[in-house]
Amino acid sequence: MTAEHQALLRDFDAGRKPALSRIISIVENERPGFRELLDVVHPRVGRAHRVGITGPPGAGKSTLTAALVTYYRARGERVGVVAVDPSSPFTGGALLGDRIRMNELALDDGVFIRSMATRGSLGGLALSTKEVADVLDAFGFGRIFVETVGVGQSELDVAAAADSTVVILVPESGDSVQAMKAGLLEASDIFVVNKADRPGAERMARELVQMLHLRMGKALRNVPAHHGVDLRRVGKREAAPESRDTVWEIPVLQTIAETGRGVPELAEALDRHLAWLDSSGVRTSLRQARLTDRVKEEVDRRLRRHVWLEQGGQALLDAALPDLAAGRATPYEVAARIVGIVESSVPPAG
Amino acid sequence: MTAEHQALLRDFDAGRKPALSRIISIVENERPGFRELLDVVHPRVGRAHRVGITGPPGAGKSTLTAALVTYYRARGERVGVVAVDPSSPFTGGALLGDRIRMNELALDDGVFIRSMATRGSLGGLALSTKEVADVLDAFGFGRIFVETVGVGQSELDVAAAADSTVVILVPESGDSVQAMKAGLLEASDIFVVNKADRPGAERMARELVQMLHLRMGKALRNVPAHHGVDLRRVGKREAAPESRDTVWEIPVLQTIAETGRGVPELAEALDRHLAWLDSSGVRTSLRQARLTDRVKEEVDRRLRRHVWLEQGGQALLDAALPDLAAGRATPYEVAARIVGIVESSVPPAG
Repeated sequence: MTAEHQALLRDFDAGRKPALSRIISIVENERPGFRELLDVVHPRVGRAHRVGITGPPGAGKSTLTAALVTYYRARGERVGVVAVDPSSPFTGGALLGDRIRMNELALDDGVFIRSMATRGSLGGLALSTKEVADVLDAFGFGRIFVETVGVGQSELDVAAAADSTVVILVPESGDSVQAMKAGLLEASDIFVVNKADRPGAERMARELVQMLHLRMGKALRNVPAHHGVDLRRVGKREAAPESRDTVWEIPVLQTIAETGRGVPELAEALDRHLAWLDSSGVRTSLRQARLTDRVKEEVDRRLRRHVWLEQGGQALLDAALPDLAAGRATPYEVAARIVGIVESSVPPAG
Repeated sequence: MTAEHQALLRDFDAGRKPALSRIISIVENERPGFRELLDVVHPRVGRAHRVGITGPPGAGKSTLTAALVTYYRARGERVGVVAVDPSSPFTGGALLGDRIRMNELALDDGVFIRSMATRGSLGGLALSTKEVADVLDAFGFGRIFVETVGVGQSELDVAAAADSTVVILVPESGDSVQAMKAGLLEASDIFVVNKADRPGAERMARELVQMLHLRMGKALRNVPAHHGVDLRRVGKREAAPESRDTVWEIPVLQTIAETGRGVPELAEALDRHLAWLDSSGVRTSLRQARLTDRVKEEVDRRLRRHVWLEQGGQALLDAALPDLAAGRATPYEVAARIVGIVESSVPPAG
């Protein structure tokens, strides 16, 4: 490790935000030495409660996240935010009022907000986002929000990699819910119908509850909102057999993020979910699954870097382009040739 | 290649749909021999016009795709459909009426519909989808629709890998459009405001046109719908310098897929776009970019298979789990160990 990075880590350990910001930039952009930094901070990762916030564009994810940040700050907690949504006010993409609110939050010393601008080079945005959350975790933020525009699979994956995943919808999302139900149901720990003062909010909440029941194979009952469902069959949320808290009942909450209505109830549901994760043993399983995933993603990234950058795969591909374009070679033949160069080379161990 | 696969290819060459269906299954699931099959059919790939259909859930992508299929069938064209959207009626996820319509289409001998059920094993859904489209292309379908729920990046990537990408919105997508504009603008060749009989359709079409202008850095003008924009600065659509057709003006169309209104105009726009791709030289560039991408994706898939399956990476990871869980090893150390096994091994060349 360079002397510069060692100095950075000392400042990081001393709780200095400029060092945090600098390390996050190095990690986000996979700059030289990023891996060593992640490796050094890794033993301190895992204490934070990670909350994924996802939902269709326009559902009010950023406003609700800001409301939650304000709520937790009032409780004296330190809060980190990683925003992947390109439309997020955190990235400057939204209304002026929202931006001002976010900027005010960001001035608070107990808050750190980072929007992911790039897609990462060889690891991809999903991996970089999780690594930035790791850095925030190691720095000592107790609560970390990861906000993604959650309709696509990779975005859903990022949110689902959190301890608790909140799926935010609005009354107008009716069609979307029907459409997305499979993926959303598997990812969500808490449903929120935001903008609950709009027409159709009650109906949507009721439909979500019914959908949860249907999905779980139970008889359709006329259940009130806030009633949950048996999730024994949903892998991620299945508790260890010895535990008595085998079931997390997915609540369907209603909020008006603009006014803060329903935010304390959402925070309370998050606390309950975290307590359940701990008591049921699910948090340990989640943590292990994340470690396994991280190894796999890091291996992929190393292999890509090895083949394309270090071993001249890119040059070989460039040389093959005329043959490819003329139909004298297929992509599968060229790929086999490039993979063949791994044969004669040794990837660096460090 | 096995005798069974050789027989399959003979039937495939003779235009027999059961062979097509069987080969697609082998490719989709990356069954043994899938790579040889793709390699053999590859020289016949590239004649079809590939059309990506994407947009938020509930926009009517499937209904519009079905309407387009019906339209092209009436013109005597053979049409293939690959649906990635898990909510698609092609996958049985939607209303009964839609499903019946799709089933009727599927009975037509000039139509082949495939919904992608799995995520692929080591290549991922995006790669498998493109390979299934390749097989349909090689079989001789002149028009291939790839339908994805296009809000997430990977879904957008799949649609954007087509020759022509149609982004479908509904009047209610207002918020979404603001939110998604960067990704959508870069991916789209044609915008469609579907359900154009609903309130706000005209306004949304107008806003889209204005957004296109803003994005291109031009002064905001009060332009009518159907007016296009200068796209010289959009990479994908930039024509070769010697060509005079340097600009594709992205049309903003309005349709009512349920009744078929606007479908002939959309088909006409697709024809114009295809003609432009050819005359401008952009189609050649697109084709070369796709070949390059395919090599990269195939290399990644081979490396993953090599490390995880053939060289015991999975076993090494499993053995490291206790150390990982106990914090005695970081994911980065374990990944370095697994990458190290590539050192002592030779990937198969074939």
